[in-house]
Amino acid sequence: MQSDKERVLEQLEVSFSTYVADILTAIRQPSISKTGEGLAEMADWLCRYLEDLGAEVEHSPGQVAPIIYGHLGAAKAEKTLLFYELYDVQPAAEPGWSVPPFAAEIVPDGSGQHRIVGRGAFNSKGPLVGFLGVLKAFRDAGVPLPVNLRFLIEGEEEIGSPSLEPFIRENLAFLRDCNAAFIPYFSTNSRGQTIIRLGFKGLVMLELSVEGGDWGGPVQRDVHAMHSAWLQSPAWELLQALTSLQTESGRLSVDGLDKVSAGPSEHDRTLIADLALGFDRETWLEELGAHRFKYDAEPEDLLTHLMFDPTLNIDAIDVGAVEPGEDPPTVIPHRARAYLDLRPTPGMDPAEVVRLVREHLDRRGFGHVQMDVKTAYPAAKVDVDQAVVQSLLEACREQTDDLVVYPLHAGAAPLHLFSEVVGIPFAFGGVGRGGRSHSPNEYIYLEDLRPFYRSMVSFLFEFGKG
Amino acid sequence: MQSDKERVLEQLEVSFSTYVADILTAIRQPSISKTGEGLAEMADWLCRYLEDLGAEVEHSPGQVAPIIYGHLGAAKAEKTLLFYELYDVQPAAEPGWSVPPFAAEIVPDGSGQHRIVGRGAFNSKGPLVGFLGVLKAFRDAGVPLPVNLRFLIEGEEEIGSPSLEPFIRENLAFLRDCNAAFIPYFSTNSRGQTIIRLGFKGLVMLELSVEGGDWGGPVQRDVHAMHSAWLQSPAWELLQALTSLQTESGRLSVDGLDKVSAGPSEHDRTLIADLALGFDRETWLEELGAHRFKYDAEPEDLLTHLMFDPTLNIDAIDVGAVEPGEDPPTVIPHRARAYLDLRPTPGMDPAEVVRLVREHLDRRGFGHVQMDVKTAYPAAKVDVDQAVVQSLLEACREQTDDLVVYPLHAGAAPLHLFSEVVGIPFAFGGVGRGGRSHSPNEYIYLEDLRPFYRSMVSFLFEFGKG
Repeated sequence: MQSDKERVLEQLEVSFSTYVADILTAIRQPSISKTGEGLAEMADWLCRYLEDLGAEVEHSPGQVAPIIYGHLGAAKAEKTLLFYELYDVQPAAEPGWSVPPFAAEIVPDGSGQHRIVGRGAFNSKGPLVGFLGVLKAFRDAGVPLPVNLRFLIEGEEEIGSPSLEPFIRENLAFLRDCNAAFIPYFSTNSRGQTIIRLGFKGLVMLELSVEGGDWGGPVQRDVHAMHSAWLQSPAWELLQALTSLQTESGRLSVDGLDKVSAGPSEHDRTLIADLALGFDRETWLEELGAHRFKYDAEPEDLLTHLMFDPTLNIDAIDVGAVEPGEDPPTVIPHRARAYLDLRPTPGMDPAEVVRLVREHLDRRGFGHVQMDVKTAYPAAKVDVDQAVVQSLLEACREQTDDLVVYPLHAGAAPLHLFSEVVGIPFAFGGVGRGGRSHSPNEYIYLEDLRPFYRSMVSFLFEFGKG
Repeated sequence: MQSDKERVLEQLEVSFSTYVADILTAIRQPSISKTGEGLAEMADWLCRYLEDLGAEVEHSPGQVAPIIYGHLGAAKAEKTLLFYELYDVQPAAEPGWSVPPFAAEIVPDGSGQHRIVGRGAFNSKGPLVGFLGVLKAFRDAGVPLPVNLRFLIEGEEEIGSPSLEPFIRENLAFLRDCNAAFIPYFSTNSRGQTIIRLGFKGLVMLELSVEGGDWGGPVQRDVHAMHSAWLQSPAWELLQALTSLQTESGRLSVDGLDKVSAGPSEHDRTLIADLALGFDRETWLEELGAHRFKYDAEPEDLLTHLMFDPTLNIDAIDVGAVEPGEDPPTVIPHRARAYLDLRPTPGMDPAEVVRLVREHLDRRGFGHVQMDVKTAYPAAKVDVDQAVVQSLLEACREQTDDLVVYPLHAGAAPLHLFSEVVGIPFAFGGVGRGGRSHSPNEYIYLEDLRPFYRSMVSFLFEFGKG
């Protein structure tokens, strides 16, 4: 007689194309939190999907998109898992797409395999609807879930999750019933190495702006460029303020910041040393579309930079009138603005970081540089010994021999909400290749959906074992 | 019996409203060299105007707008004057206009006088058509011009006069017949001080750009901001390259540049010392729409900065996707670009300046910062003792007691084409208030057209005296 697990895995084979079609459908529904496009439609689709699985679905209004939450599964299971994901995506207006970003086209990769290409394929509709497909397979196979499942799916992650923390703080009782949180992900890189991350950097979104005023510069209107001989320029001030925040070699350099950054622990260093043994420079560069790294360094140092350097990235600068094909007028623009994302590492309190940046600027005479903080959350880390982490590692090991553990991911996710605010551990990952998050031709591998599904099934059974 | 001069001045009184209407008509015809809008119509209007005056008019095709040239006047005059002006304007899409920029509305100034407000009112359709109105008054009064007049009117000044130098080099014979060049201008500031300038800074338009490549950074496509921990950023590179070109106090700082800049002569210093006595800080700041100057300095130093500092102004910066009301995606933009205007002072050869900037960047490891040079011409200066300058000063003195001489204007004009390429002196100016060149609500004073006209009439008679 088949085991429950075998029945679910067989169901995944039988109905594979149906579950894949669900992913394509979700990608084809734009849901752009920056603009609001399609958020309501995507939320409706998700609610119907979850209700169809038998879930009790509720939603809480967010700033621009509802939080969808609820529960599913047999009350008799010993353990309760909190499934977190996002249903919003970044805009897809950037040039470079070889297929329409919301067509979810299946594109040959030139070596006999196929990519599902589309905005959100990798971040995060592939993992979101991939995991839901596994839940559907349990239902279709008539197998009860080995865990009680609670879910929390937001539609504002790409604008910094403004509604998530208030929701969590208002629903702590619902969330503290869970033993752990889980976030599925396509964790396999293009070389076939599956990477499980034990944590994430934080995120502080900053807008630095300078306008002419009492400090100098043209006020409220641009003036002719000739006057730059005796008038200050908001643009030059902004640039000098910004470059004061970086070293020449491109490291964040804020007075006092080194004192609040914990850096890697001894165990982190051990994990990094292990990772460095299998580090493939060329594969990494190929995935990043770059010819070289910022540092001429050995793998161990490179990985330590990636994971444990706090960073300040320039997302955009708005100075003067830039029109395609035209030269801007020769004026001193009266306003200059930079959009930045700062990524704190473990130990760095975002409020403290913001205070240090402000003081750093003030100390250098940039008191007239205005700083608006939009999002600010800290890094989050979990212990490798936690059951939820061990279950995920075991589930992935069933699908691949090439499994590694990263102590920290350079990407940001507000998982401190689980580890610190709710107080439960989390695990993040799954088997499968994908990439180009926030970039043109974002993708996941069609051929990897099978091992992804299987890793999710194993994870649920492992964690449910107790 | 009336003198010729009296008859022309009387004619200007009689037909004043007609001549003013011509200025309004010209402002109402957009002629934007950046976009091409209305250039042909404006050129046609000008040709018809000149032909109506009895001029022989020719035109030479420019890059985007024809150069209009020819001659007018009695062959018996001893002296020949070359009249130079421009008929193009900057775009007027910038916010802040209180009236439509091409309506040429007459707006009360709140103290009983009136401004003609519109793009090009001050720079340069007011002076252009104002001068043509004076020529019309000579014709209407039946008075022969006291000089032979040659004219050269371009429509590409606001994009850096790309066709002017080739034209001048091909027509040297026509131009060398002239004793001097003259460019009318509304030289009176808001305090009522009329400023005659003996020269202009040069102009070097630069585009500095950085794209990901062998040096580092993401190539051809943006990548997720998290990778800024180990990938270079074209934006940071551009900012560091740019800030290396300025001191903290905002002065151009290019290795070796101080050696090629002549600075003010002893006579220039004497003129500046005179100017400093009547320097009105508050009026200047009001005109500029600023609360303070770049330097806490005495008037003599401020004026020396204005006139003899070479400058590097940031016109615009293009980094990332800036959309109104939206935060940009959190990516490392794979390209960063800055549009700059550098203004050389007398003695600085633009080709040498460009070479020094390039070497300065290369020396600091910014070989991957690409530099495109669009326009490059040197400063131009004329001796105060030249007849054309003395004639203009005398003509202005007839209209005002408050007349001062500036050794150099911070604005750029390619007058080296006259002083160096053709080899004739030039004069630039006239009585009348105007301002906000390249800014919203550009204007000239309606009430000042009368003294402007009169100063032009006197100038022509003075210069014609021989």
